[in-house]
Amino acid sequence: MALRYELIKKDKSSGARLGRIYTEHSVIDTPVFMPVGTQATVKAMAPDELKDIGFEIILSNTYHLYLRPGHDIVAKAGGLHGFMHWDRSILTDSGGYQVFSMSHLRDITEDGVAFRSYIDGSKHFIGPEKAIEIQNALGADIIMAFDECVPYPCDRDYALHAVERTTRWAKRCKQAHADERQSLFGIIQGSTYKDLRQKSMEEIVNIGFPGYAVGGLSVGEPKDVMYDILEYIMPNMPDDRPRYLMGVGSPDCLIEGVIRGVDMFDCVWPTRIARNGTVMTSQGKLVVRNAAYKDDMRPLDEQCGCYACRNFSRAYIRHLFNVGEILGARLATIHNLYFLAGLMSDIRKAIMEDRLLEFRDIFFGNYYKSQTLS
Amino acid sequence: MALRYELIKKDKSSGARLGRIYTEHSVIDTPVFMPVGTQATVKAMAPDELKDIGFEIILSNTYHLYLRPGHDIVAKAGGLHGFMHWDRSILTDSGGYQVFSMSHLRDITEDGVAFRSYIDGSKHFIGPEKAIEIQNALGADIIMAFDECVPYPCDRDYALHAVERTTRWAKRCKQAHADERQSLFGIIQGSTYKDLRQKSMEEIVNIGFPGYAVGGLSVGEPKDVMYDILEYIMPNMPDDRPRYLMGVGSPDCLIEGVIRGVDMFDCVWPTRIARNGTVMTSQGKLVVRNAAYKDDMRPLDEQCGCYACRNFSRAYIRHLFNVGEILGARLATIHNLYFLAGLMSDIRKAIMEDRLLEFRDIFFGNYYKSQTLS
Repeated sequence: MALRYELIKKDKSSGARLGRIYTEHSVIDTPVFMPVGTQATVKAMAPDELKDIGFEIILSNTYHLYLRPGHDIVAKAGGLHGFMHWDRSILTDSGGYQVFSMSHLRDITEDGVAFRSYIDGSKHFIGPEKAIEIQNALGADIIMAFDECVPYPCDRDYALHAVERTTRWAKRCKQAHADERQSLFGIIQGSTYKDLRQKSMEEIVNIGFPGYAVGGLSVGEPKDVMYDILEYIMPNMPDDRPRYLMGVGSPDCLIEGVIRGVDMFDCVWPTRIARNGTVMTSQGKLVVRNAAYKDDMRPLDEQCGCYACRNFSRAYIRHLFNVGEILGARLATIHNLYFLAGLMSDIRKAIMEDRLLEFRDIFFGNYYKSQTLS
Repeated sequence: MALRYELIKKDKSSGARLGRIYTEHSVIDTPVFMPVGTQATVKAMAPDELKDIGFEIILSNTYHLYLRPGHDIVAKAGGLHGFMHWDRSILTDSGGYQVFSMSHLRDITEDGVAFRSYIDGSKHFIGPEKAIEIQNALGADIIMAFDECVPYPCDRDYALHAVERTTRWAKRCKQAHADERQSLFGIIQGSTYKDLRQKSMEEIVNIGFPGYAVGGLSVGEPKDVMYDILEYIMPNMPDDRPRYLMGVGSPDCLIEGVIRGVDMFDCVWPTRIARNGTVMTSQGKLVVRNAAYKDDMRPLDEQCGCYACRNFSRAYIRHLFNVGEILGARLATIHNLYFLAGLMSDIRKAIMEDRLLEFRDIFFGNYYKSQTLS
C-alpha cells in the first residue's frame, strides 16, 4: 500500500510536528531518525538488534546495492526486506547523491548520468527511469526521485540549472514509477538560495508526491545557513505530507530541524563515529577509545539503558577498541543508535507537551556544556 | 569452589568418556568444545550469543590479557567474568604457548622466560609464579600450569629437557597457586616421543592436579602422529580427572580425540575460518564468500537451526563478505560455533548410546565426501 501520513499535533511555539507514517510494514512515529544500512546492513548491527532498540524504518542506498550485489539478486531474494531479513519499513535513496559525489568520470546529460564504478571502474548509466527501475526491484516502502544534487558552494546559475533539471527528472520518475506499494517522494533542491528553494518546492509539490525531501543540505554549508533555509522553506510546504531532511543526524541538527518542521532524518554519522570509538551520552560526546577510560568501570552513560550500558564498562569497551575487536564497534553502535532513538522519543514527548524549546535548552545545556556543537 | 568431575559413562567400543564438570559458574557436559576469546571476547560475538548457542565454558589467553589491558585492570573489574560480562565458566591458558611461539628475543632460563612484547617491543618476564599471579588476577575457573611448549619437529634431547622443566615448573605453579576457587590443571609435554609423553604424564600426575592437559600437539605434526600419541597416552591417564587436548577444533580431530578419551578441546580455527568466509555444514565446508553463492537463496546449511541459517541466505552472507560488512563475520561465526556445539552434543549422545564409531563413519561420509580432511 502507499503510505499514509497522519499529522497528530503542531507545537505551539515552533514549527515542530508530531505525526505518524503508516506503511505496509510498520507504523512510524515522527519526527524520526532512520539508521543507514548502506549495503543492506546497518554496519555492525543485526536486524534484531535494531528492532530491540525500536526502529521502525531504516534507509538503504540504491547506488551501492545497484553495484553490489546488483538489484536483480536483491529482487530474487524477494526485495530488500527478504534479502536483509528486515520486516519493518525501508526507504531507499535514488542513487543521485552518490552518482554526483562518489563517481569518477561522470558525464551528466539531460538523460541522466554516465559514470564509472568506484569499485572496478566499470561503466554505468543511471537516469530517472533507471533509478526507479532499480528501486522497484529493491522494493523499499519509500523510494526517492532521481535528482541533481549540487555541491556547496554552488553558483546561482548552476543551482538554478540543477533545480530545473531536478523538476524535469522528478516528472519522469513519477511517470516511470508503477508500483503502488511503494511511495515515491519528490526532492527539493536549490542550494543555499532561498528563491531557488521556493521555486523548486513549488515545482515539485505541483507534480505531487506522497512526501517531500529537502536534498542538497548538510553538504558542507554552515549549520546556520541550513537552519535559515529550513526556516524559510518549511512553513510553505504542504501540511499533509511528511518532510524529510536528507543526510542529517547530529543531536543539534536533529533538534533544530524538528523545530523548523522536519519529520524524517537519516545520517551515517552516528554509526560511523561509533565504529571509530566515539559515543554520544547525556553529558556530551565521549571518545571511549581514549586511554583515559582504561580503568573506568562506569558504563558509557550512567543514564542509559542500552545493551552496552547495562552490561559493559568503559574500560572493557576501551579495551575492545584498543585491541581492534569487532565487539567494540558493535557495542558503540548499539549505544549511539539507542541514544538517538531515545532523543527522538524525548523530542516527540516534548512536542506533545508543548515544551520543545525548553527541552532543547536543557538538552543542549547538558550535551554541549563542555564542547563546541557537533 | 574447585571443580568436580563426574565420569558418567565409558563408550564400549572406544576410549570415549561421557562426563560432567561442575564449577562455581556452570555445569559443563563433556566432551566439550570451548570457543576461544583471546582478548576477553570471542571474536565477532557478544556473550549473550554464546549463551544462546549453549556454551558453558570459554577460553581466554593470559599472554594477551597480560599485555592488554593488563591483569590489574581485569582484576579491578572483578576478574574476567565481570570484565567481559560472562557469568559461566572460563579457562585461561598460562601464556606459555604464546611466550614460546609469539615473542621476540625471548630468553629462556630455569626461572622463566624474558621476552619482548609483539605489540611494542617492551620487556617482560613470565615464569611459573608470574603466570599463576596473572591467572589469579584474571580469576578464571580453570587455570593452567606454565609449561615449556616445544615446536614440531623437536629433537629428542630438547624434548626431554622440556619435559623435565615442565615438571619442575608444574611443581612451582602448584606451590604458587593459593586461590581455591580456581582449579589448576597440569600440562603433559613430550613432543611426539611416546616414552617422553609417558614420563611427563607420570610426573605431572604424581604432582597431582584436578585436571590434566595434553600440550604440544596440534603444532604442525601429521594428524596420524597426534592420534597415535593420544592412543598411547590416554588409557594411562587417571579416570577421575578431565583430560584436555589443547589447540584442537576441526571436526575430524574432535571426533578422533574423543574416541581416544579426550574430554575438553579449544581452538581458534572455527571462528577464524568464519571471519574469512568459510563455514562448516553437515555436507562439508562451504566457502560462502565465493561468487558461486551470489544468488543462492538457501541457508548456509539446510539442516541447521542457528540464527544465521534461520534468517539469512548464502547470497546475503556472500554479499556481506564481498563488501566487507561486519555482519558477515558475525553470522559465519555464529554458524560455525553452533555447528561445533551441535557436533559435540551429537558426540555425547552417540557415546551414551554406544554408537560413537558408527556416528564417526556417518559424519565423515557426509562431511568429507567431496574433500580432503581438514
